[in-house]
Amino acid sequence: MPYRTDLALDEAEHISGQLEGIKKEELSFDGVRITRIKVHSQAGAAQLNKPMGHYVTVETAPLTGYVDHDGAAQIALTKELTDLLPAEGAVLVAGLGNPAITPDALGPQVAQHILASRHLSGELTRSVGLGELRGVSAVATGVLGKTGIETGELLCGLVRQISPAAVVVVDALASTSLQRLGRTVQITDTGIVPGSGVGNARREISQKTLGVPVIAVGVPTVVDAATMTLELTGQEVQQGHHSAGMMVTPREIDTMIQNAAKLVALSLNRALHPTVSTEDLMALVG
Amino acid sequence: MPYRTDLALDEAEHISGQLEGIKKEELSFDGVRITRIKVHSQAGAAQLNKPMGHYVTVETAPLTGYVDHDGAAQIALTKELTDLLPAEGAVLVAGLGNPAITPDALGPQVAQHILASRHLSGELTRSVGLGELRGVSAVATGVLGKTGIETGELLCGLVRQISPAAVVVVDALASTSLQRLGRTVQITDTGIVPGSGVGNARREISQKTLGVPVIAVGVPTVVDAATMTLELTGQEVQQGHHSAGMMVTPREIDTMIQNAAKLVALSLNRALHPTVSTEDLMALVG
Amino acid sequence: MPYRTDLALDEAEHISGQLEGIKKEELSFDGVRITRIKVHSQAGAAQLNKPMGHYVTVETAPLTGYVDHDGAAQIALTKELTDLLPAEGAVLVAGLGNPAITPDALGPQVAQHILASRHLSGELTRSVGLGELRGVSAVATGVLGKTGIETGELLCGLVRQISPAAVVVVDALASTSLQRLGRTVQITDTGIVPGSGVGNARREISQKTLGVPVIAVGVPTVVDAATMTLELTGQEVQQGHHSAGMMVTPREIDTMIQNAAKLVALSLNRALHPTVSTEDLMALVG
Amino acid sequence: MPYRTDLALDEAEHISGQLEGIKKEELSFDGVRITRIKVHSQAGAAQLNKPMGHYVTVETAPLTGYVDHDGAAQIALTKELTDLLPAEGAVLVAGLGNPAITPDALGPQVAQHILASRHLSGELTRSVGLGELRGVSAVATGVLGKTGIETGELLCGLVRQISPAAVVVVDALASTSLQRLGRTVQITDTGIVPGSGVGNARREISQKTLGVPVIAVGVPTVVDAATMTLELTGQEVQQGHHSAGMMVTPREIDTMIQNAAKLVALSLNRALHPTVSTEDLMALVG
Repeated sequence: MPYRTDLALDEAEHISGQLEGIKKEELSFDGVRITRIKVHSQAGAAQLNKPMGHYVTVETAPLTGYVDHDGAAQIALTKELTDLLPAEGAVLVAGLGNPAITPDALGPQVAQHILASRHLSGELTRSVGLGELRGVSAVATGVLGKTGIETGELLCGLVRQISPAAVVVVDALASTSLQRLGRTVQITDTGIVPGSGVGNARREISQKTLGVPVIAVGVPTVVDAATMTLELTGQEVQQGHHSAGMMVTPREIDTMIQNAAKLVALSLNRALHPTVSTEDLMALVG
Repeated sequence: MPYRTDLALDEAEHISGQLEGIKKEELSFDGVRITRIKVHSQAGAAQLNKPMGHYVTVETAPLTGYVDHDGAAQIALTKELTDLLPAEGAVLVAGLGNPAITPDALGPQVAQHILASRHLSGELTRSVGLGELRGVSAVATGVLGKTGIETGELLCGLVRQISPAAVVVVDALASTSLQRLGRTVQITDTGIVPGSGVGNARREISQKTLGVPVIAVGVPTVVDAATMTLELTGQEVQQGHHSAGMMVTPREIDTMIQNAAKLVALSLNRALHPTVSTEDLMALVG
Repeated sequence: MPYRTDLALDEAEHISGQLEGIKKEELSFDGVRITRIKVHSQAGAAQLNKPMGHYVTVETAPLTGYVDHDGAAQIALTKELTDLLPAEGAVLVAGLGNPAITPDALGPQVAQHILASRHLSGELTRSVGLGELRGVSAVATGVLGKTGIETGELLCGLVRQISPAAVVVVDALASTSLQRLGRTVQITDTGIVPGSGVGNARREISQKTLGVPVIAVGVPTVVDAATMTLELTGQEVQQGHHSAGMMVTPREIDTMIQNAAKLVALSLNRALHPTVSTEDLMALVG
Repeated sequence: MPYRTDLALDEAEHISGQLEGIKKEELSFDGVRITRIKVHSQAGAAQLNKPMGHYVTVETAPLTGYVDHDGAAQIALTKELTDLLPAEGAVLVAGLGNPAITPDALGPQVAQHILASRHLSGELTRSVGLGELRGVSAVATGVLGKTGIETGELLCGLVRQISPAAVVVVDALASTSLQRLGRTVQITDTGIVPGSGVGNARREISQKTLGVPVIAVGVPTVVDAATMTLELTGQEVQQGHHSAGMMVTPREIDTMIQNAAKLVALSLNRALHPTVSTEDLMALVG
């Protein structure tokens, strides 16, 4: 593979000829651009280098600065997530990635801001004015090197135990484009396939492996150094080159991850708990 | 229940009459006292207010100061853990408790120091001179209020998925005795029963619920404020009293937890990876 | 000293006779009670066991649950802080305490949520719509055992270097009353005198030692175990007793500290940056 | 400036002609290479693009794997630090950088592992068998964006207050060479000049600005993306290019930083506290 990306949008730009079995629509409002790609045939999947399914991308202003929690990106993400999530039933949100590596910490940070409600009785939530809540649970899955357990294994065991209607996995992604870092959110119903973000290849996490719908939400936070080299020089980096295990990432990665995590978590909270006000969500899991 | 403790040693001291169905032996060396209590009948269990099984307590000097990683406490713990653990087979170590509450952070801190090896091939570990390692995995289970998932549920799902030969659960405990805080380690093969340490009552985690042997390792870090009041005044605290949700804990709780976590983790690592030197263990996960 | 408290309110309750040189006024609204104590003579200071000056206490509902960021406590605190702070000039906010001990982590957590603006040019802040900001700086001072530097020394050096018009020190406090924990905020212009909260005695931090006005803001998070014992039994704990180095603290101390830190930080931000909207403050440092 | 580096070693390699006013010596043992560069004239300083003074570099095996705490790198660093530090007098160790950005977290992590002793009486340290200790203090200086205070200002105030005989500043560095990342330690008596590591340009921190000798210790953890681009393509990146604010860093940056921090901290502790055994140092601040 000459370049490495987790974004359908990047892949679509690398296709020179005509799209086959791929439907693409774009719309923009208030500075936000939404691209919906639907891959509906195996030919399309081969061309895009991605499994069949839906890929929605929301592009916004850079998340290094001030984030408006009632802004267009927030509204767009909440709507797109609502459309892809099942209308009802319990949902397990899993934050993937290594909290000790800043560009990989999106998943764990999102998990911390999810309003977990599975353990709360309706009686309790009604008594504090939150109404009846959907049963939401939230975990950070940790990293294989520290736990000895693959993320896919942990989620498999958990899904069999608590039987959610769907799983949402949140992870940092790789892009081919420096401009997309930290300002793009991709949502897909195809789950996560090996070769992602900062971490190493791992088992697919999808409806096929977990047995329930899997929605993956990701934000590109790194460009592979070998990919950047290829883009800049037109030449593939040789195996064993020093850039092989390297990644390119913005200097202000801490602010970017923090803002992206808040944006994604609030969208998920709003999509999963539509009866709770944004103010209450921010006060509870801010 | 007039007082609250997780230590068999505390309970044994509260028994006024003769012990029935309870065997107790004590030995001391180099400033460390080991007490082995075996409850071998239901009468003994009722008397001790604990399930039938083995309870080993290692008492050492206060863990607020300097800890000798080759000292007597280390040696005693490693030996007692080795005796209670199955001789072979994969082991899952689970750190219970809330990392954001210092006296409850023992479990998560221990989990961070466990040498996870389940994902490493024998080829790899032999090539770096560590020999063939037992398959060890390590997780911090998080807290119900943040995840929406009970610790028992998470472990149940995980055990079904990865099928370890045994589970080790590590948790902070409650004692009736201020003197025992931070200088006592209890090891038992009965698992953990509701009513523990800082957190609230929860489902039993034991061989009965997980289907494999469960060894619980704990260090008392708090005394219930109501228990202390009872001990001091001889009077039970009334329901709704302000001390009801309170705990008593040492001021230097950060150092105590840190030292206790290192002591317990190193003992577990030595018992689980007897072929790896203490120096290598400390360099790898110290 | 038979009991240990940092709250003027606790001390006032322990005075049996008539108050001399002490003025006290109370007002309540929307479930919040404000008590303003002014000690205006040395006799009053001796009676109250506190230096001459102002002590304002805001009592609210327990901070373990949901916090309304536009509620009465917020409004009251912002007003009282505004009244005690100098009307203009740069302000240094210092968070005291040990972040690794939950009930002592108030100061460091508040420091993280303060909108530092001293380094921002007026041109920049106006360009992003925040107007001209007062020069605010924010530090967590760390703990003597880890740094080898007394908080008072660090602040002395810093004040001489950056010459603020006033210093605000934020710290966790000790109370004699379990009911006051986590639901009381004390503001005083007398600074902090030795014998506070979780940590050990230290040098006074006040206008006398720093040379500029010092406003101390604190929330009681612990009761000394010896003090609780005295209150319960009427008897002083003997020196060397096991409760000597112990503290009593709520089980839900993590939520309490987090909510108290947000409440105090937002009040300070609003008092220091009155031209910035609450929403902007929460988005920027929330 | 066409490329960006903090390493004298990188600069020396970019000099094509003969070295003037620069003395360079190299030695190797047990897989460690030590390079000592002395810049003793203004011509040399101009040629090397660095102030006059000493630059010692210790190159070792990659710090991503296992670190031997008694290995050659440890021995070499301890010796070189001992040679550059004043023979006696109090020392302030300052960890620079942002703990929330992994490749910038070297300084704060080192500060956590330094044995602070300034506050300990000789009576106390002798009674626990540590002998008479040099007065060492340790701070993490935080980041301007969060504190509103420049690192140089904070250190200036602190030095005036506590009057150490020397200051050691520890910081992550930038290199032009991907191979040098995480396996090179540079020690210099010239302090730190603007344009370093992950953070932005700032005031010089040196004997000139602090009034006492300043030893800077650094490990390269990033290559500027624009620098990598220049090295790969031979062309300068244009202003405003997307790689402008980007950095290249290894995927295993968490392990690298953790190991580098332990290596540097232990060397400093050994150089500052030569009477304390390595085992005691590791047990106390490991």
